[in-house]
Amino acid sequence: MKDKAVLNESDIPFFSVDWGRTKVLVGKGSPAASDRVMVKITEYLPGYIHEKHVHPVQEEIIFVLSGRGLTETAGGKRDIKPGDVVFIPAGLEHATYNPYKETLRAVIIKSPPDND
Amino acid sequence: MKDKAVLNESDIPFFSVDWGRTKVLVGKGSPAASDRVMVKITEYLPGYIHEKHVHPVQEEIIFVLSGRGLTETAGGKRDIKPGDVVFIPAGLEHATYNPYKETLRAVIIKSPPDND
Repeated sequence: MKDKAVLNESDIPFFSVDWGRTKVLVGKGSPAASDRVMVKITEYLPGYIHEKHVHPVQEEIIFVLSGRGLTETAGGKRDIKPGDVVFIPAGLEHATYNPYKETLRAVIIKSPPDND
Repeated sequence: MKDKAVLNESDIPFFSVDWGRTKVLVGKGSPAASDRVMVKITEYLPGYIHEKHVHPVQEEIIFVLSGRGLTETAGGKRDIKPGDVVFIPAGLEHATYNPYKETLRAVIIKSPPDND
């Protein structure tokens, strides 16, 4: 049986992505490695965009911790704020924007986890 | 294809559990219903205990938003605080305690989701 893991997110370094920076709490490279789910903290920096993309198999959940942003699907854009939960089913094209002056900080949950 | 869902956690009511109160952000009864993952906000109230139990199949992740508490497995108890991530593999007996004066508020992620 796998062991329990306890870690603090502040001990995990961010790495840069095109839309800001992210860190893996649960997933590859973390002491908490799951085959079922991936959990990250992502910061969408002011002025940055996570361009439209599709996860053919993965579901994604964005739980906003702080800041503001925009989520977009074919239905249009809408604002997101702290406490908002965005559920993106597999196969749905989506994008995330931060046109505001404050960093948009969110917990990102993906299932199944990324392969790389 | 399922649709995207956007909701705010403050619009979802808590229901009582033996260790405090909880609400389902993603899962049964939510507009964001996933077959893969369940996401809840749980508040472990001061003086309350989520007694030792086992999820034979489900993995559980506790991401602490605020407050303090204790997580216990066979290896012993340890304090948890904001930013802590507790990863509990399937089959591992565990408990959560809040012996402190402040509510322990956490995001709970379970995969696969609860059946009931």
